Amino acid sequence: MRKHNFCAGPCTLPQSVFKEAAAAVENYNNSGLSILEISHRSDAFVAIMEEARALALEMADLQNKDYEALFLHGGASMQFLMVAYNFLQKKAAYLDTGVWSSKAIKEGELFGEAIKVASSKDENYNYVPKNYSIPEVDYFHCTSNNTIYGTQLKEFPQIGIPMICDMSSDIFSKKIDYNQFDLIYAGAQKNIGTTGTALVLIKKELLKKIKPNVPSMLSYQTHIERKSMFNTPPVYAIYVALLNLRWLEKQGGISATESKNRKKAALIYKEIDRNPLFYGFAKKEDRSMMNATFFLKDESLSDKFNDLWQKAEINGLEGHRTIGGYRASMYNALSIESVELLVQTMQELEKNI
Amino acid sequence: MRKHNFCAGPCTLPQSVFKEAAAAVENYNNSGLSILEISHRSDAFVAIMEEARALALEMADLQNKDYEALFLHGGASMQFLMVAYNFLQKKAAYLDTGVWSSKAIKEGELFGEAIKVASSKDENYNYVPKNYSIPEVDYFHCTSNNTIYGTQLKEFPQIGIPMICDMSSDIFSKKIDYNQFDLIYAGAQKNIGTTGTALVLIKKELLKKIKPNVPSMLSYQTHIERKSMFNTPPVYAIYVALLNLRWLEKQGGISATESKNRKKAALIYKEIDRNPLFYGFAKKEDRSMMNATFFLKDESLSDKFNDLWQKAEINGLEGHRTIGGYRASMYNALSIESVELLVQTMQELEKNI
Repeated sequence: MRKHNFCAGPCTLPQSVFKEAAAAVENYNNSGLSILEISHRSDAFVAIMEEARALALEMADLQNKDYEALFLHGGASMQFLMVAYNFLQKKAAYLDTGVWSSKAIKEGELFGEAIKVASSKDENYNYVPKNYSIPEVDYFHCTSNNTIYGTQLKEFPQIGIPMICDMSSDIFSKKIDYNQFDLIYAGAQKNIGTTGTALVLIKKELLKKIKPNVPSMLSYQTHIERKSMFNTPPVYAIYVALLNLRWLEKQGGISATESKNRKKAALIYKEIDRNPLFYGFAKKEDRSMMNATFFLKDESLSDKFNDLWQKAEINGLEGHRTIGGYRASMYNALSIESVELLVQTMQELEKNI
Repeated sequence: MRKHNFCAGPCTLPQSVFKEAAAAVENYNNSGLSILEISHRSDAFVAIMEEARALALEMADLQNKDYEALFLHGGASMQFLMVAYNFLQKKAAYLDTGVWSSKAIKEGELFGEAIKVASSKDENYNYVPKNYSIPEVDYFHCTSNNTIYGTQLKEFPQIGIPMICDMSSDIFSKKIDYNQFDLIYAGAQKNIGTTGTALVLIKKELLKKIKPNVPSMLSYQTHIERKSMFNTPPVYAIYVALLNLRWLEKQGGISATESKNRKKAALIYKEIDRNPLFYGFAKKEDRSMMNATFFLKDESLSDKFNDLWQKAEINGLEGHRTIGGYRASMYNALSIESVELLVQTMQELEKNI
């Protein structure tokens, strides 16, 4: 029995991706070799890497533009460091919207001044700060979607300084102007693929601002010069990303997935607001289309509710340990049917108390 | 038709590992979820991580001793940097035995003085320097096996300073006293598993010497405190490592694999020395048990030889691009039969010229 996986990341991917990814572990493309043992310098893998990089740019509508795509080791957490190591000369501005922003700020502080232009910590990050001003700095950094709290930036400031965005949990989920950013990074384990790699989309113009003496593995310049193959890349994670990006393209690309994502989010938020047993965590105007966070008004019902959704073969609905409650993560590969099923269990709880 | 894979890394792994690793991508342990989508905080993955860390220590005979095992992002190249970032206060000593040592030295130079105590660059790294002296420094760093040239350190200096070893290409291939090192690291894609993670075995005592202000993702302290789960780990690469370590244990552990590895190396080197068409690259006393490098005396025979081994379903016999010729990599999972087949093709060439 296939589970309905609402995990916040690693998260559900299309069944067809799992099937093809499994087959490649036994015998890649009928080569008599597993994808796990092929050389990363082989024609087979170079083709995988190049297609994945090209497709990532295409999904962001940045092909033929002045951007490069990289698949790097270390996840988004390594990007917190790389961004500051490469670009923080004196000071940078950060928007603090939660745990991930805070971790990025911590790494920035090692290299200079990391100014918080605004923070929603005062209300446990249940909203996105607005109307802040950004001083003259090396770059502005923000987190577009906050998985833990279920908030999402709907607009980005229009500024004349380099704009860097951690888009780990909502990249490729909806049409936006990717061109407004100078650097976008995203851990792969949500809408890109599985754990073990991070995608970086970087404007070539920004490379001129890299500081001297950045260690090889942390320098964007190194990785671009070596076409994302400076050292042995995480082969399988990149292959899974390629399969998933191909799937996304076949589904009709980002426009089609956005429309599906809007339907899923509408379904769950409608129920959270309607059902008298539940309430939402994030402020309505800042609600995330990817992660819906909600609580039971009466916590004594939690055993009953947990029993209901678990019996319905739903997985990963627990809220993040820092805020508790529930979290329904609805990344691209999650079906509308899975969300309908969750709504049904919420209604079943209402009927049966 | 299953290929005989002599690749230098990524490399062949046991068929049983590929089979189990493939099954887990479709449905992990009958959970109704793929290993690619399970939460890294789930009981299932925490159990995988803990077993993999324990088994790695056990294979090195460091269990119950004062060591910790970590599975980190970034491969061995990230360790070149982490070692220097954590421990190079003023100066460190490096033994230069090839490309990988040189890359480690380059990262060291960013943090202080990186002294080359000896180098075999004068003869294109076809031997291992001996009889060098090591000054009073923060640590001594060496590369135990040099995949590109096919050389291997058979002995390590006995010194009173921290000893750090890049064991990427011969870890777990033979019994040695792992206890003589303060930190061992190894990219996983040889005898540990597949690409996407590096194993680090670190003496807890050494942690006291970590410099202040090391960025979170680069600090060994961070990763030990968080049990190798500071950020989302490369789940699948660690799972493959676990399967492969379990296989190694079932085969009889390192003693049994060492005896098989000695047989394979004896077979290929005997033929290199006997067959009048070939000659070895590395000096005999420094020959690697993992990578045998050799050349045709008459290069005009190369098309004929390439044709022979490729028809025998042998894969990955080309030498590294920096030295050319041939390289037979014979990691733990390569069978004696595969080496016998290679020897046969070398003999066939001899008969047919």
